[in-house]
Amino acid sequence: MEQVKLLGFWYSPFSHRVEWALKIKGVKYEYIEEDRNNKSSLLLQSNPIHKKIPVLIHNGKPICESMVIVEYIDETFEGPSILPKDPYDRALARFWAKFLDDKVVTMVNTFLRKGEEKEVCEMLKVLDNELKDKKLFVGDKFGFADMAANFVGLWLGIFQEASGIVLVTSEKFSNFCAWRDEYVNCSQVKEYLPPRNDELLAFFQGQVRTYAAASASTLK
Amino acid sequence: MEQVKLLGFWYSPFSHRVEWALKIKGVKYEYIEEDRNNKSSLLLQSNPIHKKIPVLIHNGKPICESMVIVEYIDETFEGPSILPKDPYDRALARFWAKFLDDKVVTMVNTFLRKGEEKEVCEMLKVLDNELKDKKLFVGDKFGFADMAANFVGLWLGIFQEASGIVLVTSEKFSNFCAWRDEYVNCSQVKEYLPPRNDELLAFFQGQVRTYAAASASTLK
Repeated sequence: MEQVKLLGFWYSPFSHRVEWALKIKGVKYEYIEEDRNNKSSLLLQSNPIHKKIPVLIHNGKPICESMVIVEYIDETFEGPSILPKDPYDRALARFWAKFLDDKVVTMVNTFLRKGEEKEVCEMLKVLDNELKDKKLFVGDKFGFADMAANFVGLWLGIFQEASGIVLVTSEKFSNFCAWRDEYVNCSQVKEYLPPRNDELLAFFQGQVRTYAAASASTLK
Repeated sequence: MEQVKLLGFWYSPFSHRVEWALKIKGVKYEYIEEDRNNKSSLLLQSNPIHKKIPVLIHNGKPICESMVIVEYIDETFEGPSILPKDPYDRALARFWAKFLDDKVVTMVNTFLRKGEEKEVCEMLKVLDNELKDKKLFVGDKFGFADMAANFVGLWLGIFQEASGIVLVTSEKFSNFCAWRDEYVNCSQVKEYLPPRNDELLAFFQGQVRTYAAASASTLK
């Protein structure tokens, strides 16, 4: 019998990508909430390189890195395909997933920690240009790149609300905002995203205060 | 008839990964050398997001990002498989390729620009631990992760020689050095790497002087 465990944080876009893939495939799994301040020995043993969630443990074997896990789920379990079938569309999906997973996350983190707007705005401009007249990043079928887009689709707005810093406006990034409104409200996405509720907002407000305190102590 | 073009730099590990994959598959291609100071309109049009090499153009369609291109080549052309067949081994190969492609390259660049040794040494320690008693990153068949490893396998040593900064010693990183010696000399790798010659060294010595001049002008 298949044994599937997922180690995650309830508020993490990276955990949610993996849950999304498991749900699309109809895979039954045990979700184990980790404590970021006191990571379990199972997590530390399963991901000794990064010591980070998410980790999928399938029949005792750990797999790390959210989009690597999503590809593994796509290749291992029956059910609707997450990556497109055509090799060129697959390459486009991997290209955008990489951009959304690496570059965007790095830039938003740099912005949150250091307040440097320039790079994150350039990146938003790239997305804004790309999303002109587009509903999805690749083709007309929801999939791999759209899962990687959950960070900009939902979490970026929560960070904005939590920090009070208005980075994304529909005047500056109209295509991106139009895409985002459709993304969070379409049935293929809505079902798999956590509700944008007070609990999620309160968590990231706490994070913002922690960053601010860390920055202030650095300046002392 | 298939038309395959590769836009690259002769000295780039990222271009060489793609050439390696094309050669393994026996694909005939036209190599187009780009000028980093005067990029062609074909490059700028083919990779408008990053404006970087390598770009593979297959029957007029551009594909960007070296490891995305390698997966595309693997899925598109006949010949020996580059990724392993088993989904778990594929996940491991993608995990290590991601580590070697993103994290290692970012850290080495930070080190070269800012001289911060701590992070790059931690990363080398991770590789050193991983490579204890291992000839290859995943399994016993040369493939995807090993292609991504060309940066640490060959280029890192050239950077060291060009800069005169001795970061990697067999005393500090004995497993990594043993792996590297075997890597650059084994027939599966040697055939696909550029010769470590005076031309390659002279190019990176020039790069080091450019970095140094840029740092000095920042301090003025």
